[in-house]
Amino acid sequence: MNEDLGNGKIVEIGGQWVGPTQDRLYELAAELGIETFPTFIDGENVLELNGKLSRYKGTIPRLNPFALLEVERTRRRMDSLAATVPREAPWDAPRAAKLDATTLGGWLDRGMHLAASRRLVEIAARTVWGCDSRDISLLFALWYVNAAGGFNALIDVEGGAQQDRFVGGSQLISLRMAEQLRRPVELGMPVNRIGWSADGVVVTAGDTEVKARRAIVAMAPSLCERVEFFPGLPPARSQLAQRMPWGSYLKCIAVYDEPFWRTDGLSGEGISDEGPATTTFDNSPPDGIPGVLLAFVSGPEARAIQRLDEAARRDAVLAGLARMYGTKALSPERWIEQDWAREPFTGGGPVCFMAPGVSTGFGRALSEPVGPIHWAGTETSSTWSGYMDGAVRSGEGAAAEVLERL
Amino acid sequence: MNEDLGNGKIVEIGGQWVGPTQDRLYELAAELGIETFPTFIDGENVLELNGKLSRYKGTIPRLNPFALLEVERTRRRMDSLAATVPREAPWDAPRAAKLDATTLGGWLDRGMHLAASRRLVEIAARTVWGCDSRDISLLFALWYVNAAGGFNALIDVEGGAQQDRFVGGSQLISLRMAEQLRRPVELGMPVNRIGWSADGVVVTAGDTEVKARRAIVAMAPSLCERVEFFPGLPPARSQLAQRMPWGSYLKCIAVYDEPFWRTDGLSGEGISDEGPATTTFDNSPPDGIPGVLLAFVSGPEARAIQRLDEAARRDAVLAGLARMYGTKALSPERWIEQDWAREPFTGGGPVCFMAPGVSTGFGRALSEPVGPIHWAGTETSSTWSGYMDGAVRSGEGAAAEVLERL
Repeated sequence: MNEDLGNGKIVEIGGQWVGPTQDRLYELAAELGIETFPTFIDGENVLELNGKLSRYKGTIPRLNPFALLEVERTRRRMDSLAATVPREAPWDAPRAAKLDATTLGGWLDRGMHLAASRRLVEIAARTVWGCDSRDISLLFALWYVNAAGGFNALIDVEGGAQQDRFVGGSQLISLRMAEQLRRPVELGMPVNRIGWSADGVVVTAGDTEVKARRAIVAMAPSLCERVEFFPGLPPARSQLAQRMPWGSYLKCIAVYDEPFWRTDGLSGEGISDEGPATTTFDNSPPDGIPGVLLAFVSGPEARAIQRLDEAARRDAVLAGLARMYGTKALSPERWIEQDWAREPFTGGGPVCFMAPGVSTGFGRALSEPVGPIHWAGTETSSTWSGYMDGAVRSGEGAAAEVLERL
Repeated sequence: MNEDLGNGKIVEIGGQWVGPTQDRLYELAAELGIETFPTFIDGENVLELNGKLSRYKGTIPRLNPFALLEVERTRRRMDSLAATVPREAPWDAPRAAKLDATTLGGWLDRGMHLAASRRLVEIAARTVWGCDSRDISLLFALWYVNAAGGFNALIDVEGGAQQDRFVGGSQLISLRMAEQLRRPVELGMPVNRIGWSADGVVVTAGDTEVKARRAIVAMAPSLCERVEFFPGLPPARSQLAQRMPWGSYLKCIAVYDEPFWRTDGLSGEGISDEGPATTTFDNSPPDGIPGVLLAFVSGPEARAIQRLDEAARRDAVLAGLARMYGTKALSPERWIEQDWAREPFTGGGPVCFMAPGVSTGFGRALSEPVGPIHWAGTETSSTWSGYMDGAVRSGEGAAAEVLERL
């Protein structure tokens, strides 16, 4: 969603980036006349690790050479293992049962020996999935990496999923698509019930009832718990809804007169192991006015500050930004905090993940149609699952599935 | 729930047993004039392992002595580790983070070396939690074991949680409690919404609205997803609802003229690694007429047969019973199958469990009141969590919590 910053400037409080191989999203935006611009990366990045501050260029910070080698080795091991996990059917991977019986974190703990590199990979994992790496199935994580084309694609700015932004904000995509519909999208009408049979569906939202031959449900699996299906969904699908939690994630946005860090030679991209925000980005509009710092608080760090009140959360995050970018960071003109766990129609962020056993036990049910009910949503996409590009692909896939059957 | 077998006989299709140290359940039943009788255990038990059938006495089957030793050693290791996990605060256990970062199955895989004993412990775990041991957090499993007073307490008939049954069926307890209320319990009124503030709650169920100073919500955590809380619950509590799935579990009941296995010198208690039912019990009424065999299908086995149609599920389970108890088992007078994953107001069985990271990350939210909202249900009990005894204790605890604040 776009948040208005005045003077025609916006900042997104939802998904915002697009990068190489996310072709369906680039194409759709182009079709709708929405332009992209590169995420600001000029200057040096900041790393806060073990109480020490340093500067670096690119995605991987300056660590001691051994730690750097271990990060690179881990990435390569992850990518080559991920390449063995079929995008369309992760449960068919060689040794799928074994990979699904352990966690990403357990695998990292066993394979990495240096604290600094392990910590860095942990920050990356928490930023990608919004949870501790020890909460997530290794098989699921590998599948997700493969669906993106490799771990670097997930974490890189240049050449990766954070490379470009949309002029006018990502929400323009849905707004312009909605304009093209013959009938306006009905908002504020959450569906309570979906009755279904071989003949079709009856969808109820409050007092409104819609009959159709088929329905596409494009909701996060856990949100499907809110809808009464009648008759009930098959056990594997109904239990999947209990088994794909959202990560814990806050997107914090500090708006300043100008991007003061740029004059210090800094890009605004940063990593901190002290937190609570463990990753930051320059999120200013294309012309750099106002200056916007974006800070992600994820997983255990998110849960820690969620217990504080609003002012204390702000203070905690700004204190971290000040350590990284100087005391000017303490006084933003404006402060925007988005915690998706507080959004009743979301439930968390940035994505839904699977614990051990879920992919092999319930994964098929994620996209297998149930009678006239088809499933969409980025979780169901075998390419760029979890991203806006995956959402677009899943919508196209579900539409094709329905057309085939009409 | 009781299922009528005619002639005043019943069989339970929900929880049914009570055993030593489940004192609050025994006391409540006695208070309500409900008697207990011992689960039938006379004769020998059956073990099907690796395609071979054998007979044994007691909880632990006759395996080769090495395998037996390993089972016993594993049980002792589990009990002594479980004893380090505080019942009221498992997240405070020594090395809680580490115990919560691995699965019960991973721990068993590392510590056990013989296939036969590992398989036996797996069957026990699946029967207790309704999932593969590799799906469940080690910390959670240890806490659950400690809340019951040890692993044997969970799996034993004599001296354990399956020792006794209720004359007339366990549902008599709720029915008789309901009779004592001044106003009848309102049935068929699922709550849609709970509005809350410092002053109290407004609970909405369809067209009915109830105002109260406090509310006790005694639902499985995942079912709380179905209720709209306004304002929304704190993030840890709302995300817990996405993180405590039900096991996959079928309770199958075959009713025969008489308990024919008894005349063969068999108790009806059995274990099979071929399944689909991996554990069986004699579930006949006190006088043994009719003969009732109870068969549990759990975890991966449950998901495998859930994909079949009703007749094929019945055939698969009966074929297993016939291997264990002879061909007479193939022709029951009556067949009752209960799959809780198909019950919209349950969602699975026999209990809810936690994957890695959930206890340390979200466990506190399980029973911490939110304003005027208090939580009950067996999941919140620190003694016999998951059992009817824990449910009774949790109700008493929540009532005390409310009285303290009124």
